[in-house]
Amino acid sequence: MFSPLNMNPARVSRYSAKRHVHMSIRIFLAVIASIFVGSAIQMKGASKPNIVMIFVDDLGYGDLGVYGNPTIRTPHLDRMAQEGMRFTDFYSAASVCTPSRAGLMTGRYPVRSGMCSDRRRVLFPNSKGGLPASEWTMAEAIKGQGYATAAVGKWHLGHLPQFLPTSHGFDSYFGIPYSNDMDLLPGSPGGAARSLEPEVEWWNVPLMRDEKVVERPADQTTITRRYTQEAVTFIKSNQEKPFFLYLAHSLPHVPLFRSPQFENKSLRGLFGDVVEEVDWSVGQVLNTLRETGLDQHTLVFFTSDNGPWLTQGPAGGTAGLLHEGKGSTWEGGMREPAIAWWPGKIKAGGITSELASTLDLFPTFARLSGIPESEITQKDGYDLASVLFENGRSARPHFAFYRGTRIFALRMGAYKAHYLTKSAYGGDPVVEHENPLIFNLLHDPSERFDIAGQRPELVKAFENLRTHYLNEAEVVPSQLEIVD
Amino acid sequence: MFSPLNMNPARVSRYSAKRHVHMSIRIFLAVIASIFVGSAIQMKGASKPNIVMIFVDDLGYGDLGVYGNPTIRTPHLDRMAQEGMRFTDFYSAASVCTPSRAGLMTGRYPVRSGMCSDRRRVLFPNSKGGLPASEWTMAEAIKGQGYATAAVGKWHLGHLPQFLPTSHGFDSYFGIPYSNDMDLLPGSPGGAARSLEPEVEWWNVPLMRDEKVVERPADQTTITRRYTQEAVTFIKSNQEKPFFLYLAHSLPHVPLFRSPQFENKSLRGLFGDVVEEVDWSVGQVLNTLRETGLDQHTLVFFTSDNGPWLTQGPAGGTAGLLHEGKGSTWEGGMREPAIAWWPGKIKAGGITSELASTLDLFPTFARLSGIPESEITQKDGYDLASVLFENGRSARPHFAFYRGTRIFALRMGAYKAHYLTKSAYGGDPVVEHENPLIFNLLHDPSERFDIAGQRPELVKAFENLRTHYLNEAEVVPSQLEIVD
Repeated sequence: MFSPLNMNPARVSRYSAKRHVHMSIRIFLAVIASIFVGSAIQMKGASKPNIVMIFVDDLGYGDLGVYGNPTIRTPHLDRMAQEGMRFTDFYSAASVCTPSRAGLMTGRYPVRSGMCSDRRRVLFPNSKGGLPASEWTMAEAIKGQGYATAAVGKWHLGHLPQFLPTSHGFDSYFGIPYSNDMDLLPGSPGGAARSLEPEVEWWNVPLMRDEKVVERPADQTTITRRYTQEAVTFIKSNQEKPFFLYLAHSLPHVPLFRSPQFENKSLRGLFGDVVEEVDWSVGQVLNTLRETGLDQHTLVFFTSDNGPWLTQGPAGGTAGLLHEGKGSTWEGGMREPAIAWWPGKIKAGGITSELASTLDLFPTFARLSGIPESEITQKDGYDLASVLFENGRSARPHFAFYRGTRIFALRMGAYKAHYLTKSAYGGDPVVEHENPLIFNLLHDPSERFDIAGQRPELVKAFENLRTHYLNEAEVVPSQLEIVD
Repeated sequence: MFSPLNMNPARVSRYSAKRHVHMSIRIFLAVIASIFVGSAIQMKGASKPNIVMIFVDDLGYGDLGVYGNPTIRTPHLDRMAQEGMRFTDFYSAASVCTPSRAGLMTGRYPVRSGMCSDRRRVLFPNSKGGLPASEWTMAEAIKGQGYATAAVGKWHLGHLPQFLPTSHGFDSYFGIPYSNDMDLLPGSPGGAARSLEPEVEWWNVPLMRDEKVVERPADQTTITRRYTQEAVTFIKSNQEKPFFLYLAHSLPHVPLFRSPQFENKSLRGLFGDVVEEVDWSVGQVLNTLRETGLDQHTLVFFTSDNGPWLTQGPAGGTAGLLHEGKGSTWEGGMREPAIAWWPGKIKAGGITSELASTLDLFPTFARLSGIPESEITQKDGYDLASVLFENGRSARPHFAFYRGTRIFALRMGAYKAHYLTKSAYGGDPVVEHENPLIFNLLHDPSERFDIAGQRPELVKAFENLRTHYLNEAEVVPSQLEIVD
């Protein structure tokens, strides 16, 4: 089904044919062109599609126009959804940054790669650990199929050279290696000033190209624009070769920065300005694909690493009708806006409530890049092709909500069972529910009505599922506890 | 600007021209037709547009797809918003049924008409009061301009003959005179059965045509279909005369009923089935306008009487990211989905966060029907024409959130001040805030971050506004306390 060639001969023919049309033989050439176009269409099934993964930081379920936000305007993402497919029940692999990104990159629950911990929730500047070389990343898988690969934006899977994107399957890297609020410099103000009137100089965040620091502190006011420019340039320079672009915006994570063009643009204030610039960036990427004619040949997937950082007050986003946010295994912590776009291949305007996760993007992308199903050994992901391209059912039967190395909750079909609960960032203890709380998330997305008492068979089925996970998902030593 | 004629000669010409086209003189007639079409376009500015007001019951801010609901599919309302304008900051006149509807019909805060009370929140079957004859309703105003007028659905402004729609400006009426959960018959079950498995026979609700009861108990399983059929027939039979249709669905108020075609249709369960049937109904109305060619000549406005009935558990809706629901002066009680549609006149796909209310629909409709501004004496409403047709600013500077006869909160521009708070239906006392709680609703729609302490000038401005309202909005004796 997939050609092993790196070059797509049909695409090359189509583009070069455009240049030689001469008025006097227009009709003749029109016939020739129609043959080329015909063969291009026939060849498409055999050629390798481009893949663009746009990952943003701390965006909540309710922060986009198309997901119901009242005062943040996101016309480009709204249009992306109208032209593509919108997920309503899509989960990140964890409720905080590092394990979420490890899950995305590996297609495996982060306990398997040691990219979570019960003591330190993410990597910090003094960390010495990172994503182990033994992990097979989506970039390595796709690169192995002859793709050009680029990572642009936030990484947060280890900032020592052996852990950087260029050691994990990306040809190039441009971005910040950990969160934009790390390396706070002594003497910087706290409180509302830090969240609502931040200055670039307060954080000593490095900006890297490949393995080198090129700017420090990174000028975060222009960082979204520069990531975007980098992404557009990469797309334009890879029109003759299939490519995988991982564009991981470091915003709207606090501290919030936006370029002068977006100052006070949003009715929502600073947070809205930042999200609207990210939306603009998505528009630039999609427009580049449209203008180069690659839109019919590129899957673009947009989602966020975890829910909104609610403890940041008005500098944090909203999970809409979902309970809690970032850091929590309630829905608001891990259910994300997610939009897939591929004109001509994904039916326009679809909405799916099928169960899906960032864990599923590894097998989905790997299959599209040409890897046979039998060679995809990542066991936690399910190929989303039938959902995306046939408006079909998801192959995913269940999903685990880890906090650190422990399973706090499980979803199975419409239902979710909580075994452990705790506020996202509070000092309250973990509450163990001997009788789990069970919610029907299709009927009750806000997790208000516990139905465990009426559904003993669900309690039993979830207990079996929990045993399955505890037996099956091995917890390896944590990389996050390796520090200076 | 507006013609006093009831008949629109341009419209009549256009439709009758269609019938006489003969193949052999097609070109000649095409020229003639183009003249007729041209004159129809010229005449449109001078003719009276039709007005369709669709009002639903207890629909929450987060219950439609286009407002972010994950599992209720509302393709017709989503399309209406894509083709029209969606409001993000639109308020009903009260947080419960009777005063909300009084505000809509009169364009005046319900304290002025006696249609609210601090003891009984709405009219009940034993009520003897209703909307006073002295009130000038939007139906009377529009009918006075030569419109055919019809009310279909729930009324709830008095069920004695002198209070019914036909006594308040409507040529005809078909619907239930109060809420669909009134007249509960003795012996009917309570609890989850009543909310999630209701049977028609448990409520002795009358269905009326004009002033006569034609069915009792009303078969609520087919009531949405029958309202829709009534609306479609009214539109089709008024193609030669401007019309005002008030289609007030009695659902998704609990108890929830839907026709067999919608049983288990929604992923959201019973409540979702009911909302999806209401959405289907909106589609039927819009399609009828499209098919008759009246779409370019009709303003359709959709909204709800108040927020979701949260105490009904999964049988109630959701206010999305807003706090609280029906019965409350927090945002969830009174901020509503609202969509305006008029192809060719309202720009497609607009989203407005301008401050607006059901109180504004009286002057908006009255002006469109041909009443000069100087003759519109209803002082609580503001013509929305500039918002709707020019994507302009709202003329409304402020809005009062009444609970019963008391002002609990005020909105002024982006800000809202709470003077009194209380849960929607709980037994807790009213809390008086000597220092009001103040929220910036554009930045903080969930009312989480009180900014009163940092904004003494806002506290002062709100105090002046409260004094203005207390002096200006006269509270007349309540109609709701007149009972058997």
